[in-house]
Amino acid sequence: MTAQRASGHGINLDPWLSHYADRANGLSASEVRALFAVASRPEVVSLAGGMPFVRALPDELVKGALDRVMRDQGPTALQYGSGQGVPALREQILEIMALEGISGSVDDVVVTTGSQQALDLVTKLFINPGDVILAEAPSYVGAIGVFRSYQADIQHVEMDQYGLVPEALRQAIAYLRGQGKNIKFLYTIPNFHNPGGVTLSAERRPEILQICRENQILVLEDNPYGLLSFDEPVPPALRSMDEEGVIYLGSFSKTFAPGFRVGWALAPHAIREKLVLAAEAAILCPSSFSQLAISEYLNEADWMGQIESFRGVYRERRDTMIASLEEHLPELTWNVPNGGFYVWVGLPADLDSKAMLPRAVTELVAYTPGTAFFADGTGRQNLRLSFCYPTPENIQLGIRRLATVINGERDLLATFAGTGPLTPSTAGDNVIAPPPDMN
Amino acid sequence: MTAQRASGHGINLDPWLSHYADRANGLSASEVRALFAVASRPEVVSLAGGMPFVRALPDELVKGALDRVMRDQGPTALQYGSGQGVPALREQILEIMALEGISGSVDDVVVTTGSQQALDLVTKLFINPGDVILAEAPSYVGAIGVFRSYQADIQHVEMDQYGLVPEALRQAIAYLRGQGKNIKFLYTIPNFHNPGGVTLSAERRPEILQICRENQILVLEDNPYGLLSFDEPVPPALRSMDEEGVIYLGSFSKTFAPGFRVGWALAPHAIREKLVLAAEAAILCPSSFSQLAISEYLNEADWMGQIESFRGVYRERRDTMIASLEEHLPELTWNVPNGGFYVWVGLPADLDSKAMLPRAVTELVAYTPGTAFFADGTGRQNLRLSFCYPTPENIQLGIRRLATVINGERDLLATFAGTGPLTPSTAGDNVIAPPPDMN
Repeated sequence: MTAQRASGHGINLDPWLSHYADRANGLSASEVRALFAVASRPEVVSLAGGMPFVRALPDELVKGALDRVMRDQGPTALQYGSGQGVPALREQILEIMALEGISGSVDDVVVTTGSQQALDLVTKLFINPGDVILAEAPSYVGAIGVFRSYQADIQHVEMDQYGLVPEALRQAIAYLRGQGKNIKFLYTIPNFHNPGGVTLSAERRPEILQICRENQILVLEDNPYGLLSFDEPVPPALRSMDEEGVIYLGSFSKTFAPGFRVGWALAPHAIREKLVLAAEAAILCPSSFSQLAISEYLNEADWMGQIESFRGVYRERRDTMIASLEEHLPELTWNVPNGGFYVWVGLPADLDSKAMLPRAVTELVAYTPGTAFFADGTGRQNLRLSFCYPTPENIQLGIRRLATVINGERDLLATFAGTGPLTPSTAGDNVIAPPPDMN
Repeated sequence: MTAQRASGHGINLDPWLSHYADRANGLSASEVRALFAVASRPEVVSLAGGMPFVRALPDELVKGALDRVMRDQGPTALQYGSGQGVPALREQILEIMALEGISGSVDDVVVTTGSQQALDLVTKLFINPGDVILAEAPSYVGAIGVFRSYQADIQHVEMDQYGLVPEALRQAIAYLRGQGKNIKFLYTIPNFHNPGGVTLSAERRPEILQICRENQILVLEDNPYGLLSFDEPVPPALRSMDEEGVIYLGSFSKTFAPGFRVGWALAPHAIREKLVLAAEAAILCPSSFSQLAISEYLNEADWMGQIESFRGVYRERRDTMIASLEEHLPELTWNVPNGGFYVWVGLPADLDSKAMLPRAVTELVAYTPGTAFFADGTGRQNLRLSFCYPTPENIQLGIRRLATVINGERDLLATFAGTGPLTPSTAGDNVIAPPPDMN
């Protein structure tokens, strides 16, 4: 190796390094991102990703919608459209939201490129560098990513088996205000939380809203999983109880298919116009083709029946995962979600989900370490298991492999550190306390 | 009206007014946006929008691609995909860019939700509030919108019939640096400029790149129209001469259809990873379905033949528009574009394109006032005419109506202001000087 080449070694060679905006420092590859590469290897059982099981959606339902779009609305589907979204689809979105008690105006619905884009636009609209966003502890990794990309100060608030803890929210607001912080909004996933798996109880919903109203804090309600309940329906949406204080985000990614990238925001009327302008600046307009395809699907297919079918698939997988955990990993803690895609697992106190991941991948099983769901580096004693995508057989296989990994770690620790038998962790400040009857 | 109701009159009732980020002030409805509403009335001949004529794309080509996607890749098309885009499509994008002399790596292509999203992501990545973006005078209204939404300081640089003027670029850089400004990038549309209609000459291309290189200014090359030439091909892309200093933006919106919202960026390798992270934060991933539909179209259809067909359609419309201008409005100035969608028109000195627009709409013709294409409020003596969407018959009708409007304005001015006969304007600092043989 020549001296010249050696001198370049380890030096950042980006000639544009001094040109980036300050916010570019907030862009870093998440654990989930790295895992996508791992999980794509066919021999790995991935319990990591949040991919819906789209094979449960009959091809002919999609094909029928595509054929009708091209037959009846081809030139419209191929053209630019309104920045706010196709009016017919926005009407249908109102009908879907009505299932969770929401009434709103078609004028206040903004169609977005997946609900992730709605998160992006709302954050762009409200967050100056250093502004606080409150979020459950833990919270959705993709939300943490976009909040960071606008230099938000993300502050976690305790969650338990009934969802966000109102008293913890009160205390967090008082503490942060005392520090002179500017709290802009509360980001919450009230139903079948990602990654927590819990649902905010009906009793707490008006209380959370009242606290936010009193403190002039906007609520960003993210509800991709609400219709995917396994037992009883979810309580009424936060938005159904407060029109002016809540921006509601919905998505077709889990109830239809993510490949079209269609989600939406229902915003207070005063905010909606700015949201549309932000959307137009970002992408001009959402895909006309995708919107019309979904609109046609909703028009003609038995979409409620299809959601019922998805519920059955995911219920079975949830049951398989819980049974496998009980059989192979009884020393862990977890909750039993009543819908959605995820089980949030607590590890024995001496284990570290992030450090253990490479060993897990060696054993051909992937999960998401808890650290991905916290902005502050905590979460090492937790991990998220997804039951949405793998078959029940693969879930069983994956949990058996995970047990091998965890037992291997325990053996290692017992041998080299001289520790005694491991005990399940007690919940820390940042983890969901599982109810006594749920592990 | 009661006193109470009167007191609310004119007051901004947005309860979240104090919550918006500073950058939200940059979001305002553009002239083009307001025009979309007007132009959608069927009795108006719109020479305003930039909608491609998608009816020139045979339905069966699109249907065939959609059928093959569902037959061969249904579950992939319906699922989440990579944040960077489908690898097969990125390979095909390299082949398309090779037509303009570009060689690059599939690793450095990032697929976006239309090239508008690439503009958004690059701006997010590089622009702190107050940073300067250099852009041609005039420039693309959608770029001005997204630059403003990140609080950029947009500075226009003179353009003439050969495109951006190198000496003006040098002077602008020196002047702005002298003022202590931080210039981050040059935004340029080298081919069939929107709205200017001009193409940067082959001679000037290396000079522009050299100036930017010397001054460590990144170049953002936006090229949606490059393949839509009417006569000879465009000169090699800026990116073909400089791998490290140029981010190249491309789009399928004008060569295929905008309804799928698929564009791309080819970025220097050092920048590409951050661009992908920014894309993932914004939308997780672009639509798998849209990408695979376009990939299938490129695989099986004679897409070069289809582009040739688009060229024929737009060439005829350009010819019709120019002939109509010569017949009905010889007192105006304009250039004759050799490709793309637009003619940039100079008005006689006493006319004001923005003020005249309501009268034009009354006469059932719409155009885009020049002010939409400047960040600084100038442009009243210019307007943009689009020949892409209306039929040749409607172009003739629209220009006749425009002549009625302009002649009416002249009569009014002559009668009430006592002015003499109007003369064509001489080019101001901010307008393209038309060559002597081009009006």
